[in-house]
Amino acid sequence: MTGFGDATAVERVEDGRYKADLGGGFAIGEALNGGYLMAVLARAAMDASPHAHPVSTAANFHRVAKAGPAQVVVEPRKEGRTAASALVTLVQDDRPTVDALIVTGTLDAAAEPGYAGDRPTGLPPLDDCTEYLPPNGSRGFADQVDMRFDRTTMGWLDGRPSGRPEVRAWFRLRGGHEPDACSLALAVDALPPVALNLGAQGWAPTVELTWHMRAVPAPGWLALHGTGRLLADGWFDEEVEVWDSAGRLVAQSRQLARVPRA
Amino acid sequence: MTGFGDATAVERVEDGRYKADLGGGFAIGEALNGGYLMAVLARAAMDASPHAHPVSTAANFHRVAKAGPAQVVVEPRKEGRTAASALVTLVQDDRPTVDALIVTGTLDAAAEPGYAGDRPTGLPPLDDCTEYLPPNGSRGFADQVDMRFDRTTMGWLDGRPSGRPEVRAWFRLRGGHEPDACSLALAVDALPPVALNLGAQGWAPTVELTWHMRAVPAPGWLALHGTGRLLADGWFDEEVEVWDSAGRLVAQSRQLARVPRA
Repeated sequence: MTGFGDATAVERVEDGRYKADLGGGFAIGEALNGGYLMAVLARAAMDASPHAHPVSTAANFHRVAKAGPAQVVVEPRKEGRTAASALVTLVQDDRPTVDALIVTGTLDAAAEPGYAGDRPTGLPPLDDCTEYLPPNGSRGFADQVDMRFDRTTMGWLDGRPSGRPEVRAWFRLRGGHEPDACSLALAVDALPPVALNLGAQGWAPTVELTWHMRAVPAPGWLALHGTGRLLADGWFDEEVEVWDSAGRLVAQSRQLARVPRA
Repeated sequence: MTGFGDATAVERVEDGRYKADLGGGFAIGEALNGGYLMAVLARAAMDASPHAHPVSTAANFHRVAKAGPAQVVVEPRKEGRTAASALVTLVQDDRPTVDALIVTGTLDAAAEPGYAGDRPTGLPPLDDCTEYLPPNGSRGFADQVDMRFDRTTMGWLDGRPSGRPEVRAWFRLRGGHEPDACSLALAVDALPPVALNLGAQGWAPTVELTWHMRAVPAPGWLALHGTGRLLADGWFDEEVEVWDSAGRLVAQSRQLARVPRA
């Protein structure tokens, strides 16, 4: 068991009820990362399902989750031959913190695509990308995840946002945890908000995030391509595609998030 | 009240419980269209919320819904100042047919975007597009919705699929119902599956569909731009952008659906 495996572990209490001990370094500030929370929910959904993979997860983020004990409640909604659906809720301090509709299915690692679109352009080779570490020495999330950024998408750090809602980076978990269903959940919410490149500042809380696992990922680095289409009225969307080292689209997400109104 | 308004009406029975009479011509074959069902869910969610618009809807489609009586159950999950979240379930024959996590909020019709991406290319002017009506005279859905298709994306009808997962069309409700939150729900699931242009045949059941309402639509025709990224292992994704007559992105969706395995 690696650090990420331990940090996302759930213990079955009874049918449909699990306990978890949240933390493991996946906080950004006080708030636990939303992708980390979705990984915990995926663990419970997979345990409760006859199927192997979380093929679709649609999550509403109600409240900030903090390190410490939590419960996961899995309520089956439909079970079919190729897919099953459940409402999976993260509960902390007796309140629903994240609700997710999770569809589980079993992906064939050997499946050849009938059609595959082109991989997005723009992410430079790994050696031309840059690691950014918090200046105060308290790395938190960066202790768990090794990310190497396309520096042209990180100008917001120096007060020079690019004006384009794009962030690109290489991603892998430290500690030798190779990509799997749960680390894909982390990957789709690991980039800094694309709105930072549009001049937004501060925390951008995710309201809704849907992600789909599309293939079983190969070992190695994952490439994350984040874009957005519209920032208006305090809302913005962010799409992330995750491509594996074998050059396959393994996960895709869209989230709707808030920015402070101007 | 127009035909679409009547067909999506819900009657409050008690707090969080509504009844509906599904039908109104929104069937394709025996199955009611998923966008129509999401419009019915949106009506109930808006009635139960202090907010005016369904800004985010994430739906799991468990079973086919048929014309006739149904219930809608709205379970509030979080209420905040700018947004509220509820689990909204369509129940027919005492079974959950569609579950949706719906976030309501209030969009400002006068809001100017802070950033807006380019409108997709490829949809010809309305006069260069084509209406396709079923040959048997039983128009069903087409009696309710006027759609004019980019004929280069309709080759699958004649056994000549384009090989590109794209379908584009103009859309408006017949009977003078101008675009609103509910007709956007219909619009994001109104196109034929993009997988038909990849050689898939037959019915492609939607498993999950998430759509976001991004702006209050202007009167007139809506432009629908449907694309896809991957068809593999029996699953494909379809993204639809809806642009209004004022040239604004008013809704965006992604669905994950099934095709028969080869």
